[in-house]
Amino acid sequence: MKYEVFDVHYTERIRTSFEQQGIMATIGGRLIKVEPGEVLIEFPYAKAITQKHGFIHAGILTTVVDSACGYAASTLMPRESEVLTVEYKVNFLSPAQGTEFVAVGRVIKPGRTITVCVGEVMVKEQSGFKTIALMQATMMTILQ
Amino acid sequence: MKYEVFDVHYTERIRTSFEQQGIMATIGGRLIKVEPGEVLIEFPYAKAITQKHGFIHAGILTTVVDSACGYAASTLMPRESEVLTVEYKVNFLSPAQGTEFVAVGRVIKPGRTITVCVGEVMVKEQSGFKTIALMQATMMTILQ
Amino acid sequence: MKYEVFDVHYTERIRTSFEQQGIMATIGGRLIKVEPGEVLIEFPYAKAITQKHGFIHAGILTTVVDSACGYAASTLMPRESEVLTVEYKVNFLSPAQGTEFVAVGRVIKPGRTITVCVGEVMVKEQSGFKTIALMQATMMTILQ
Amino acid sequence: MKYEVFDVHYTERIRTSFEQQGIMATIGGRLIKVEPGEVLIEFPYAKAITQKHGFIHAGILTTVVDSACGYAASTLMPRESEVLTVEYKVNFLSPAQGTEFVAVGRVIKPGRTITVCVGEVMVKEQSGFKTIALMQATMMTILQ
Repeated sequence: MKYEVFDVHYTERIRTSFEQQGIMATIGGRLIKVEPGEVLIEFPYAKAITQKHGFIHAGILTTVVDSACGYAASTLMPRESEVLTVEYKVNFLSPAQGTEFVAVGRVIKPGRTITVCVGEVMVKEQSGFKTIALMQATMMTILQ
Repeated sequence: MKYEVFDVHYTERIRTSFEQQGIMATIGGRLIKVEPGEVLIEFPYAKAITQKHGFIHAGILTTVVDSACGYAASTLMPRESEVLTVEYKVNFLSPAQGTEFVAVGRVIKPGRTITVCVGEVMVKEQSGFKTIALMQATMMTILQ
Repeated sequence: MKYEVFDVHYTERIRTSFEQQGIMATIGGRLIKVEPGEVLIEFPYAKAITQKHGFIHAGILTTVVDSACGYAASTLMPRESEVLTVEYKVNFLSPAQGTEFVAVGRVIKPGRTITVCVGEVMVKEQSGFKTIALMQATMMTILQ
Repeated sequence: MKYEVFDVHYTERIRTSFEQQGIMATIGGRLIKVEPGEVLIEFPYAKAITQKHGFIHAGILTTVVDSACGYAASTLMPRESEVLTVEYKVNFLSPAQGTEFVAVGRVIKPGRTITVCVGEVMVKEQSGFKTIALMQATMMTILQ
């Protein structure tokens, strides 16, 4: 899908915001793609973000894909705006077992107030990427 | 609600599992109540778990309340079982601003395969507790 | 919870809206309670709203509890407003088997733009009411 | 995606089930595609399924796309099985205004017990199809 962009400096704006997130430093998240309506964040396995079996905790997968979805919505917003997560729903498809993960957030329906996004978290495997979590999220834009 | 318990040692089993979660050490979560069908986890504010405005990240609230819901389901399960998160949905009601937080997970409908839980995250305020996030979750039990 | 009411004629406004819903006539829904932040709708079993086993279809339970939640939000809104369903999530706890059903919608967090509700559908049994579906919903208010 | 089929007579099995749904007769649903992991159901506008503004009620869109998702899961299941809706979440993107609608259900992750589906409802417009509702659903298979 092709979306209209209202702030040509969206990449810079989003990178600055990303660096302000304490949790992204803790997780080791790296912003690897910022395009209109689509954002990718990579992160590595670490013991500090695991659940009881040593896999990445569902809530951490959620944290990263929520950020990806929020920033995907933010790419389409004016400079003086803020995107808040109203709610999300996530299905977990397979255990988060692996060494490198990627979360993708995509805008499905942009709106002045409400933007709907879908996201997924994938694990890198030798044969390619496997989806392990699927998100459907509602974001709200506050103009400042 | 009064639920039947199949493993009288559920508290011990859940405490052991809780200590194996790398993420709970990172977040500083403390298991403060484990009763049949209900689990409470406390956690403090820390810069390491914040989003861009310095509030706790939505995904971290989700992490803790997901653990509370999963353990609430687990209290009602046999010893040789494992509870997995199938999916959850969370609404965010207010910014996670404060110094001390509590997540509660409660079983609404236990089942041999599927258990439905609701959860909430509250911030401690002078006047009491304020709910800042609301979860509805589906857990699956695997007998081993 | 006690909520502030901005339109004292909310009951009348909601009854008028209810009667305009073609689907409520089809389902045989009856508005049995309209209070600030809480609405109840009753409906009977009918073959015309069943799924393959002759139970009420999940989507019909959803239809009624969505209406109950939307109207619950609407009780707290100004006269010249309209409430839209942004999204909802529903868990189905037991088959919708019975002759009389009640859907309840309750406001959890009212807001100028976004109102969060929870709802449930219950079946009347000899021993009381049994919850068969659980909703968590996000409503949006449009001021006109 | 290519999925393995365990019952070559799945189309017949699903058509029979579809005809047993009282609600599908009420809505005027027509099963227009049944393929491994994907099912389409068409339905026309009717006053009997509307909300207060005369658009199709959100719960009716949900009813049809839930059926499409359930049958999509069912295409991949053995003959002697039954698919139940555990839960779903739906976002509403635009008013359901139009004369002809199509719901699509697709399997994202099949499983022996749990199958995850996504679905959408589209309205036919002169320029093509417009998505008006987006579902993410969890189905459970019971072997009989």
